[in-house]
Amino acid sequence: MVTQCQTKEPGRRERRKEETRRQIFQAAMRLFERKGVHDTTVEEITKAADVGKGTFFNYFPSKEAIFSALAERQMGILDRAVERAQTAASIRPVMIEMAKELAAGPGRSQIMLRSLLGLALNNKMLFELFTRVLAKGRERVGIIVARGQELGEIRPELDPEKVSRCLQHTIFGTNFIWAASKPSDLMAWHERSLDIFWRGIATEKGLTNKQGGTKK
Amino acid sequence: MVTQCQTKEPGRRERRKEETRRQIFQAAMRLFERKGVHDTTVEEITKAADVGKGTFFNYFPSKEAIFSALAERQMGILDRAVERAQTAASIRPVMIEMAKELAAGPGRSQIMLRSLLGLALNNKMLFELFTRVLAKGRERVGIIVARGQELGEIRPELDPEKVSRCLQHTIFGTNFIWAASKPSDLMAWHERSLDIFWRGIATEKGLTNKQGGTKK
Repeated sequence: MVTQCQTKEPGRRERRKEETRRQIFQAAMRLFERKGVHDTTVEEITKAADVGKGTFFNYFPSKEAIFSALAERQMGILDRAVERAQTAASIRPVMIEMAKELAAGPGRSQIMLRSLLGLALNNKMLFELFTRVLAKGRERVGIIVARGQELGEIRPELDPEKVSRCLQHTIFGTNFIWAASKPSDLMAWHERSLDIFWRGIATEKGLTNKQGGTKK
Repeated sequence: MVTQCQTKEPGRRERRKEETRRQIFQAAMRLFERKGVHDTTVEEITKAADVGKGTFFNYFPSKEAIFSALAERQMGILDRAVERAQTAASIRPVMIEMAKELAAGPGRSQIMLRSLLGLALNNKMLFELFTRVLAKGRERVGIIVARGQELGEIRPELDPEKVSRCLQHTIFGTNFIWAASKPSDLMAWHERSLDIFWRGIATEKGLTNKQGGTKK
């Protein structure tokens, strides 16, 4: 509850809380990166974040709840992509940028991405979070696809929602296979996969737009 | 050890063994379909297959080892696709058929596919099996892609191995997202995804081949 004469004080308190939350989140991500989620304990996270163990539970109800912070981050990336698409001359680079940004967090290590995708499939709470984020993500990307159709870059006969879901297949599949293969450059795979995907949905204009250069 | 004068007897014994193995495999798959892998016990599998519990371990060292049988099945599908590609007039339907056949086993239910993909990522033994099958699969599909290039259907400048891996992204991504979304027709999603993928790699000839009809 904030009364008007207190605006300055809580602002600072809020910022400090936000900072602690960020610290815990980043410490957790660094540990997940090295050891996977399963083998990382809350104690290790709080130690690495330099906060008391009790403090952790003021911010996150469980280790798995860390992923609600990751989910928010991913939704933010999608929102910004939707925004960029509104003024972009071509949505091809917007899509590629978006896919790479989405992969950058979870794709910090193969171990982390493996345990993340595994948890998304096996942990009930995370599964529900994951399906919600997937559904929201499809809705956002659908807006971007429709914008690409307005620009004449994407074939008008395609259903934006279906294209959006097929793009999710490509992005998640690229992450999944990367996590389960010999070490390689995840971002280069996203570029290759999305180049094929773009050609698959583009009009002649979409293929020849100057931002639409190809990569093998 | 088979001596020449015993050829008939062991043939029958071998067939019976093969039959029992198939029975156990199918009973396990039916249970995984309903309950997932984690919540299915070996006792339930042997009961459903109508064999003694000890018998199970004569065929499979563990519940997870059931998946080596699934892996063999998937490799068989890939081998047959390679064979079909040698004589096919267009490899587009060969690819679509292959993707659907690969998905048909694991995709018998969302619960089963979820626990399967989750195990592939989290169980060390299954992860190794999975990466081996992925690598072999890429090699097989690379042969099919090269055949498509010979036929003039796939752009000659593309690297067959990279196209093959990108196809894995699409196929696995389609399965993964299906397993984590509201119930829907998995095979229809494979067709949509592969239609985009095909357009993404095809030459003009590949797009207009009479077997290359499109689907939205």
